Amino acid sequence: MRTERFPESPELPKLGKAEFAAEEIALREQLLLRQRELRAAGARSLLVIVSGVESAGKSEVVNRLNEWLDARGVRTVAFWDESDEERERPRAWRFWRELPPRGSIGIFFGSWYTQPIVERVFRRSSREEFDGELAEIASLERLLAADGTVLVKLWFHLGEKAQERRLERLARHGARALTPWEKRFRSRYRRFVRISTQALDATDASHAPWHVIDAADRRRRDLAVGKILLAALERAVQPQEREPQMAPLAARSAAPARSPILAAVDLSSTREGAELRERLRAARAALDRLSWKAREQRRSTVVVFEGWDAAGKGGAIRRVSSAIDARLCRVIPIAAPTDEERAQHYLWRFWRHVPRAGYVTIFDRSWYGRVLVERVEGLATEAEWARAFDELAHFERELARGGIIVQKFWLHVSADEQLRRFEGRASSAVKQYKIGPEDWRNRARWADYELALQDIFTHTSIPEAPWEIVPANDKRGARVHVLETLVRRLTEAL
Amino acid sequence: MRTERFPESPELPKLGKAEFAAEEIALREQLLLRQRELRAAGARSLLVIVSGVESAGKSEVVNRLNEWLDARGVRTVAFWDESDEERERPRAWRFWRELPPRGSIGIFFGSWYTQPIVERVFRRSSREEFDGELAEIASLERLLAADGTVLVKLWFHLGEKAQERRLERLARHGARALTPWEKRFRSRYRRFVRISTQALDATDASHAPWHVIDAADRRRRDLAVGKILLAALERAVQPQEREPQMAPLAARSAAPARSPILAAVDLSSTREGAELRERLRAARAALDRLSWKAREQRRSTVVVFEGWDAAGKGGAIRRVSSAIDARLCRVIPIAAPTDEERAQHYLWRFWRHVPRAGYVTIFDRSWYGRVLVERVEGLATEAEWARAFDELAHFERELARGGIIVQKFWLHVSADEQLRRFEGRASSAVKQYKIGPEDWRNRARWADYELALQDIFTHTSIPEAPWEIVPANDKRGARVHVLETLVRRLTEAL
Repeated sequence: MRTERFPESPELPKLGKAEFAAEEIALREQLLLRQRELRAAGARSLLVIVSGVESAGKSEVVNRLNEWLDARGVRTVAFWDESDEERERPRAWRFWRELPPRGSIGIFFGSWYTQPIVERVFRRSSREEFDGELAEIASLERLLAADGTVLVKLWFHLGEKAQERRLERLARHGARALTPWEKRFRSRYRRFVRISTQALDATDASHAPWHVIDAADRRRRDLAVGKILLAALERAVQPQEREPQMAPLAARSAAPARSPILAAVDLSSTREGAELRERLRAARAALDRLSWKAREQRRSTVVVFEGWDAAGKGGAIRRVSSAIDARLCRVIPIAAPTDEERAQHYLWRFWRHVPRAGYVTIFDRSWYGRVLVERVEGLATEAEWARAFDELAHFERELARGGIIVQKFWLHVSADEQLRRFEGRASSAVKQYKIGPEDWRNRARWADYELALQDIFTHTSIPEAPWEIVPANDKRGARVHVLETLVRRLTEAL
Repeated sequence: MRTERFPESPELPKLGKAEFAAEEIALREQLLLRQRELRAAGARSLLVIVSGVESAGKSEVVNRLNEWLDARGVRTVAFWDESDEERERPRAWRFWRELPPRGSIGIFFGSWYTQPIVERVFRRSSREEFDGELAEIASLERLLAADGTVLVKLWFHLGEKAQERRLERLARHGARALTPWEKRFRSRYRRFVRISTQALDATDASHAPWHVIDAADRRRRDLAVGKILLAALERAVQPQEREPQMAPLAARSAAPARSPILAAVDLSSTREGAELRERLRAARAALDRLSWKAREQRRSTVVVFEGWDAAGKGGAIRRVSSAIDARLCRVIPIAAPTDEERAQHYLWRFWRHVPRAGYVTIFDRSWYGRVLVERVEGLATEAEWARAFDELAHFERELARGGIIVQKFWLHVSADEQLRRFEGRASSAVKQYKIGPEDWRNRARWADYELALQDIFTHTSIPEAPWEIVPANDKRGARVHVLETLVRRLTEAL
């Protein structure tokens, strides 16, 4: 057992009430001041993770923080009883839905550490699985920190003897019954500390450091927390050095850039109408059947549609969604984010649409906007879009780990075909609304998009969430291609 | 059995494919056009409720609508499997969380009618309970319609023989198994129709009319739905006659208006410090115990704090929230609504914070803003705030029917005491942030607020959600008063 992380504390004399009160007043003033600055800036959020051994007084600490801080900017969330809505989604979902928006403080009582540690302590997960969980936690914290969230990770420690003394005192005075956790962990103290050490070691990073707090003396403990929080708030309100706004991406050479992957797509073939009709019918029937089977098996499906403007996303989505019972399928169109969404990490607004077990969710455009339009138009800095490839892969891996089948489509048309469709839309009374100045502007950036796409296909084609590039000059052929790909994918997965 | 609502349809010849296609094209163009106008205006929403007898093809209709409409403005929600998060809240919660925002269309597959009808059909509720449910549904629809939601209530009807024929055909061809609902309702056709007739009669209103659609012929059925929807969309995009912006409320006479109820409050008494400290301690301990008991009994509590500026809401809330385990208590400060909230009925943003069973939620300001600041400042029209008294009572009754204990506090100080506190705040470095121009402006409108308050206490003091007016010139006395009231309320309720 490594002991350097949790040294047995020297026996300090208890901190007196008067000493505590004197420090508390100054601390509280500072905390309130900084909290106000955090809110006024509205740029960053603070996330306090409260964890540690049982009986260390975590609940008391949280109450103290709620007393010290202005309740209007603090949200305390206890993660203890998982609801079925949470159980039926990837583990990370319940945490994402409670993340504090910019300008505010979130206190997580229990966190993404709890379940992995508990499962490992009780040997319900292997060391490899545990390490895998910790690696995903590290990814998650990295992406939150990169987005400006200040992470305050508190670990409350109590030596074995001190814990035992506290439990005995509790039992003797009968102030309250031992919680089920206290009973279960009492006999597993050493294993719990060993596993926790592994967790802390694997996730201690400069952007998300652990603070181990000796919980033996209540007043010292609370003051320590207050000071750590204050230091974090001071960091959070410092003006951020943000990279300058980027110039839009420009293709690197004067010659139109091509994506070798897209260049290899054969756009010429068209098929017989009668054959296509029969295949379309068969694939739709199969999809209907498979979606019910997926529901029985409690497996969800997430389908992403990206593609050139006028490539036929809408038509393809309609062919998919209308083949599935309306009760099982939901289409999420991605437009401009709302202000609640803007106040969170850019992945937050996709997390909120992750379906419960057994449903199909279709995204009409998606999280790839980060590395497509935002990159091309210079809305994301180079650092932001460059790290996004990892972040998107992390997100999709989390979905897959939650049992969700992920399939991504890129609907590909040639520039000539797009032009033909634009002109057709402009001259049709019914379709006019489908074409606007933005489409023409995007078209002028075709080469930049090809560059961005080449990176996307190279970096985000993971087995858990493959890309299917659909030749879509032939609209009906493209729809059949989409449907048959989905049918194949679901057949393999179910 | 009343038959006029569901007449047996004359045997019309089936509508041909070509006839259908001809009508469909024109209809679809119109639907898309109007849908776009609806979105562009962003003022009203459309809610389609799909209900009716089993095997009438409701799922087919919903798929057809999804095919006809632009998916980017439609959200289809099937209410079939209630999650535990839904079961643990008032019934209306699951519907509120899925209401379409302004500018969009919601399709509810199953609705607030389903459960009351099913329970009554299977005699799990009495006629009185059923009538009570229907009355609350009528309230709900009235308040949605008043807010600009266009309600399209579709009831798909199939005669007993037609249903039987369809079920037999299904069984014979084995295209799919009968759903559990089809099996259960098959033998109860007549009772189902009788109960449904009662439901339709009780909730048929000019602002929320029922459309009974004969589902015998699929194509006629779908065209009928399309036409009803189109007519509703046309109504929804007509320019609304909104009342002119109101002038701020002004007290009716030159003499400062007084609320007789507030005038009767004795603000003079103050208590001994030692006695108060002991009572505070005892009440906090009792509250801690009661909140655990409430959690065991799965009862939630909603506490509303309203009061004059500087009356000590923050301090009182802190004394309450810190007495309860942080895992059980949440404080919701009500500030300006977000844009997602503004796109919904004003009660929506309170519904989203309704707790799961067993928790305490404290609202720091509340839905009474509608009949306080919004009325006084002229932000709500007279029609809006006048009908709000009913709407607020409906909301609180729904909470109470869901098993939630509701307690409302008004913290009352005299105008002189408020002035003293304002001046104290202005001269204190730590408290300066608590006072701003808005507070002085509100103070100047004291008489208007008294008028509004008199109406509030008169109209919204319902047994399910009583007001407690707390004399708060003496801060510590007020805190004890709040705590002891809560303790009494919880003791009675648990």
